Amino acid sequence: MGPEVPVDAEAYLGRWAARVEEELDRRIPERGGEPPEMYRIMRYSLFAGGKRLRPVLCAAGCEAVGGEPEGVLPAACALECIHTYSLVHDDLPAMDDDDLRRGVPTSHKVHGEGAAILAGDGLLTLAFGLMADEEMARRAGAGRVIEGVRMLAAAAGAAGMVGGQLLDIRAGGRVGSPRELEEIHRLKTGAMIRCAVCLGGLLGGGSAEALAALARYGERAGLAFQIVDDILNVEGSPELMGKAAGSDARHEKATYPALHGLEASRRLAREACEEALAALSPLPGGAPALAALARFIVLRRF
Amino acid sequence: MGPEVPVDAEAYLGRWAARVEEELDRRIPERGGEPPEMYRIMRYSLFAGGKRLRPVLCAAGCEAVGGEPEGVLPAACALECIHTYSLVHDDLPAMDDDDLRRGVPTSHKVHGEGAAILAGDGLLTLAFGLMADEEMARRAGAGRVIEGVRMLAAAAGAAGMVGGQLLDIRAGGRVGSPRELEEIHRLKTGAMIRCAVCLGGLLGGGSAEALAALARYGERAGLAFQIVDDILNVEGSPELMGKAAGSDARHEKATYPALHGLEASRRLAREACEEALAALSPLPGGAPALAALARFIVLRRF
Repeated sequence: MGPEVPVDAEAYLGRWAARVEEELDRRIPERGGEPPEMYRIMRYSLFAGGKRLRPVLCAAGCEAVGGEPEGVLPAACALECIHTYSLVHDDLPAMDDDDLRRGVPTSHKVHGEGAAILAGDGLLTLAFGLMADEEMARRAGAGRVIEGVRMLAAAAGAAGMVGGQLLDIRAGGRVGSPRELEEIHRLKTGAMIRCAVCLGGLLGGGSAEALAALARYGERAGLAFQIVDDILNVEGSPELMGKAAGSDARHEKATYPALHGLEASRRLAREACEEALAALSPLPGGAPALAALARFIVLRRF
Repeated sequence: MGPEVPVDAEAYLGRWAARVEEELDRRIPERGGEPPEMYRIMRYSLFAGGKRLRPVLCAAGCEAVGGEPEGVLPAACALECIHTYSLVHDDLPAMDDDDLRRGVPTSHKVHGEGAAILAGDGLLTLAFGLMADEEMARRAGAGRVIEGVRMLAAAAGAAGMVGGQLLDIRAGGRVGSPRELEEIHRLKTGAMIRCAVCLGGLLGGGSAEALAALARYGERAGLAFQIVDDILNVEGSPELMGKAAGSDARHEKATYPALHGLEASRRLAREACEEALAALSPLPGGAPALAALARFIVLRRF
């Protein structure tokens, strides 16, 4: 092998996002699903212009251990189904009560609350159906897929994303302590970012040592992404993770800028990103795609 | 082996329901889960006095193919988590808007709507975490567990239970045609009953032929149970599947008695039950537990 060629993060993001979108479109078809409305309302949110960050991290995590990302596409699609369902449920009147997401009406505004709840339930269930893809099990090994299902359920469930969202709605307008804020972020968004990277590595055949490095990268990068998201939300720049600018302040959500100020938040994001990059050193070739993604999302901004 | 000893269905139901309850209590502990409120609200609905019919059918399906039901307890618990989450979400104001279930306030009345939605999401996610239990994979084989995850996701998801619930809320007060009613029941409750029986058989090591027999039994028994449930709901007897007496009429739900009358509904339940019993003939010993359960739930009543 020649010297490592640096990865163009934007092109990488675009390429794998498009590939994941193709797969989602093929696996959740516009026509033929029964009942048809069910598939229509799931697709409404699934194809509303997400960045596909989690699936791309899954592909990059797979590549980082020498795996073939095409082989983990069902898992990448599963991650996006879970992310999408979480947005649909979070937008409900009983939670954040958002009417718009990425400039279009939220699912419950279009389809009604009951149907939006069911669309979320359907997407969450579908995610695990995708994880059980026969071809992926053949390539990755059934044992690794089962470990992946356990990992995904842990990250998305009560002790992960869902638990974090509960802490978030219970916190209400209170800004809370830095520790409380980090705990909410760690569970609500961090767990799934970490899981995305690790799932790619696991299904790509990574060693225990490689998976530990990916977990560390995922934790620190996840925190950095979240702080960047908080900052962009305040600054009104095009957002990274899909919320309307200023929506956190409107909901009086606890955020890094609210608690630490903008300058300290930028510093914390840079530090977390540097830790994420340092974590990659045990991986063959230093995992250039993962490194480029972290740099692209965090460092180039500050 | 001596001659087949008939199974006491009531004792069988009680024994396996208690066993499943123990397992649920062990796997979703009252203390130690983080965040603690998340586990508390999931347990609130999980231990609200369900009959544990689906887990018991899973145990009986396993036994019907010569498997050891203790080995499929994680799958049995997963079925109950999914059933419970579906009740929590169905009770929400945006769906059936029920304040009471089995005489106690529904989750959203106690914990708020947002928390109830999240409790449901947590239970659904947990179900797939349970399916990926290491010990079950070791006993049943990882390939069978992955097939089981696929089966469960199909039965619980958009093309099964969730899709059926969408058809149900869209049907609103309209009684509709017999065909529409059967389609709603087939998806909303039938798919998970069928899945419960088949999952037990699959993880118990059943042959393709045995699984086909279990699927047929599950389909017909599921329909029979649903008709009985509809009838009991009208008659105000202690309910089988956990709804308040008369609640279907209050919601103007399409039901068998509403569409066919009580007498014809009883006949349809008996016929479906006889078909379920007939389906068991290819199984070793005629699957006495499954036969006894169908007789106990359906035939003894009419």
